[in-house]
Amino acid sequence: MQTNYETLTEAVKELAIIGSIGNVLGWDMHVNLPPKGNMLRAQQGSYLAGVGHKKFTGKEMGVLLAALCIEADAGNLTEDQALNVRKLRQDYEKATKLPTAFVEEKSEATSLANQAWVEARMANDFSKFQPHLEKIVELCRREADLFGYQGHPYNALLQLYEPGMTVEKLDSVFIQLRPFLSVLADWVIADGKKHRPVEGKFPLEKQRELVKKVSALLGFDFTAGRLDISPHPFTVSFSPNDVRITTRYSEKNLLYALTSTIHETGHGLYEQGLPADQLGMPLGEACSLGLHESQSRLWENHVGRSAEFWQFMLPALAESFPEFRGVKLKNWMRQANRVERSLIRTEADEVTYNLHIILRYEIEKGILEGKIQVKDLPEVWNSKMQEYVGVTPDTNANGVLQDVHWSMGSMGYFPTYTLGTIYAAQLFAQASKELPLKEQVAAGQFHDLREWLRETVHRHGRKYSADELVEKVTGSPLNPRPLMDYLMAKYVAL
Amino acid sequence: MQTNYETLTEAVKELAIIGSIGNVLGWDMHVNLPPKGNMLRAQQGSYLAGVGHKKFTGKEMGVLLAALCIEADAGNLTEDQALNVRKLRQDYEKATKLPTAFVEEKSEATSLANQAWVEARMANDFSKFQPHLEKIVELCRREADLFGYQGHPYNALLQLYEPGMTVEKLDSVFIQLRPFLSVLADWVIADGKKHRPVEGKFPLEKQRELVKKVSALLGFDFTAGRLDISPHPFTVSFSPNDVRITTRYSEKNLLYALTSTIHETGHGLYEQGLPADQLGMPLGEACSLGLHESQSRLWENHVGRSAEFWQFMLPALAESFPEFRGVKLKNWMRQANRVERSLIRTEADEVTYNLHIILRYEIEKGILEGKIQVKDLPEVWNSKMQEYVGVTPDTNANGVLQDVHWSMGSMGYFPTYTLGTIYAAQLFAQASKELPLKEQVAAGQFHDLREWLRETVHRHGRKYSADELVEKVTGSPLNPRPLMDYLMAKYVAL
Repeated sequence: MQTNYETLTEAVKELAIIGSIGNVLGWDMHVNLPPKGNMLRAQQGSYLAGVGHKKFTGKEMGVLLAALCIEADAGNLTEDQALNVRKLRQDYEKATKLPTAFVEEKSEATSLANQAWVEARMANDFSKFQPHLEKIVELCRREADLFGYQGHPYNALLQLYEPGMTVEKLDSVFIQLRPFLSVLADWVIADGKKHRPVEGKFPLEKQRELVKKVSALLGFDFTAGRLDISPHPFTVSFSPNDVRITTRYSEKNLLYALTSTIHETGHGLYEQGLPADQLGMPLGEACSLGLHESQSRLWENHVGRSAEFWQFMLPALAESFPEFRGVKLKNWMRQANRVERSLIRTEADEVTYNLHIILRYEIEKGILEGKIQVKDLPEVWNSKMQEYVGVTPDTNANGVLQDVHWSMGSMGYFPTYTLGTIYAAQLFAQASKELPLKEQVAAGQFHDLREWLRETVHRHGRKYSADELVEKVTGSPLNPRPLMDYLMAKYVAL
Repeated sequence: MQTNYETLTEAVKELAIIGSIGNVLGWDMHVNLPPKGNMLRAQQGSYLAGVGHKKFTGKEMGVLLAALCIEADAGNLTEDQALNVRKLRQDYEKATKLPTAFVEEKSEATSLANQAWVEARMANDFSKFQPHLEKIVELCRREADLFGYQGHPYNALLQLYEPGMTVEKLDSVFIQLRPFLSVLADWVIADGKKHRPVEGKFPLEKQRELVKKVSALLGFDFTAGRLDISPHPFTVSFSPNDVRITTRYSEKNLLYALTSTIHETGHGLYEQGLPADQLGMPLGEACSLGLHESQSRLWENHVGRSAEFWQFMLPALAESFPEFRGVKLKNWMRQANRVERSLIRTEADEVTYNLHIILRYEIEKGILEGKIQVKDLPEVWNSKMQEYVGVTPDTNANGVLQDVHWSMGSMGYFPTYTLGTIYAAQLFAQASKELPLKEQVAAGQFHDLREWLRETVHRHGRKYSADELVEKVTGSPLNPRPLMDYLMAKYVAL
């Protein structure tokens, strides 16, 4: 007879297949879809999501997981099995806490809000989005209540993206980070180190070859993945054996494609490094959005923006692009690491980026608490931008309306970007203690770093929370100091 | 309360969504899949196919269709509704005639046979494939018995690809066609008209632009479709609003990509021309493989290989490819329409292509009857090749092992290629009577022909059998004369 765990394995396998098919549809939508294909694609996606949700939240699954938790408590399962069972039970409880009526109400509200956001941004008119955002805030408050929480209601939302993270931990970190970043940005900009810009027209076909070569060099396995083009670069995994990353190109700006490719390669390496034999099980899934972002940021910033990396890359670049012949490392480092008081988060540099995030975090907390009113958001946004980044948006489209997240009903997501940056610095500092990274990167050798990350981070799936994992690897839980040390050293030396 | 037809519409919609998702998976598999992604993709595909099959062949569907047939007989449905209901009932009966045990046995056998075929072809060793093909033949015989048939058992298999077609009709046509084609091929080759070959290295990027432009010019709607690359060009439709065609490129041979693009554009135009509001219903589906092939062959041969087409295209080609400057129409027509005694069906010219098909048809009939033994196939193949095409294969890999079809369990499929060629000639002859096609094609105007095909062929879905439709449009059922007249006139004039 089949054991309960075997029954679970079969059910999870089916859910993994359904989920991975949904990911194929999503990937094709962002990379390939002709305009008229949109409507059927939406129907295909919501059909599959419905089938998956129904299978996972059904009573059968609840009974099976309850029985398996008893087996786990009695010590009748292996450690890995017990872990999978307990995490799935948590997922199940989370998934069944929201009544269907609520899920449908939120789905409809975000669908309308997203359309309104697109129009509002295009028309640069916040008032078109305001009533929808008010509805979303109300839904997020109710969602937090339905999930339940300790301390701040924001904690309930954080769990969706970063299990184990709390407002209390974030506050204690951001209070250190924000003034430091503002001061550092001011200093770098005032210092105003000059460089002679490397300019040119870089043929797309050559760029494509270049970024693919770099991605492969960092360790992305192209027999188990692809690199394609999409307006907003992203990574999606069907399984560790089929991971799709995307980038986009600019003829004028070589870094545009290269940086985003390295970033997505970091995400892709994480997905390719998850244990394939645990597909669909918690042990086969990425730990958190923050830890995911740590992998992309580590490769993008600590490797891809380092002097050692460019020491290795500049001669290679000069072979394909004559504009790079004779370019001095110091000059290029200044160009590649320019700091600016910019308006748009996704275009921000390493120093100011997290100020954009902290601003959003404070606003999300404030509106959830009711201390900030949605109608006042443009004003609050602009004054915080002036205070933190030192610039006031010229329009709401370039200010409060720039990000898609709220229109999708995602509150509590933004902090994971900064958590990723912090974890990345902690992990890279630790890896630098254990490996001769400067020498290796300067020689174009990335194997050891990749294997180190695979061993310390990737292979664990959701075994630990991000915070726990980072502590296990580096000896310290969430800690902004390595990031601050790294930025300080780097920008003073530029 | 919901009417039965509304219930059916919902169920069919769900089946169409499931089927179209399967098509997305299939397209991605042939166009994008990294090697290691294969295993999960096979699981995803068979999972979806299983879900769809189960939903369609369930008792609920049977009861619903039976009830609706009574409504249809009582005149309570519209003409279109009645047609959908009756065709679905036929499909249902066909789908439920094969016991699950048989379907599984055949699925396993073809899976093994396909692997064996790949190996046998690579090793040029028929004996590796022989036992598998023997099993497939046995399964096809049993399948024919399970479906039931009148006359020849081959008739049962033909219905899977070309509803309404029979061995009796095919024989009466092929008996006229085969000697004519052999004689014509001999004459053309003996006549040996000389040409000065246009040779060059044609940059792939420019070829890509060219074939996309040509496809759009013929009427393929790129807001409702895409053109990508795959080793074996194909067309797949998710819906009339998202049709994907593929091609492949050769730097040395411009016709390689252009011809296959025009061929697939013909298939694509058919799919884009089906009524989108009947998605999943018989009225929204292509009529038969033969009629599908008639659309690709019509554009590929009657348009794309005609003197009028090249009169229009040569100056355009000369703009992108200097090799084409000063090339004379007559010289190029001889190159583009070369006739050869070639070994490989997919590379054959217009005259000999159907000899390759007739050979396969005769063999399939013979082995199904037991008059030909599988073990004797290499010998039978080679002697028929010598007799019909005038050349004996150097290896079995270039002979009896060249096609994938038998390894997939598909017997009765090959004739649809020739049926398509015959229908294409009938339809094009009729269109030429109704429209000034020579002038239009020479002027690069394809709108009227496309609309004519949309009106006479595409929009009808499965309303008529291919044979009936062609008779309705041209006044004559399946008739090889227009094809023979066309080839005769063309090759004498070259």
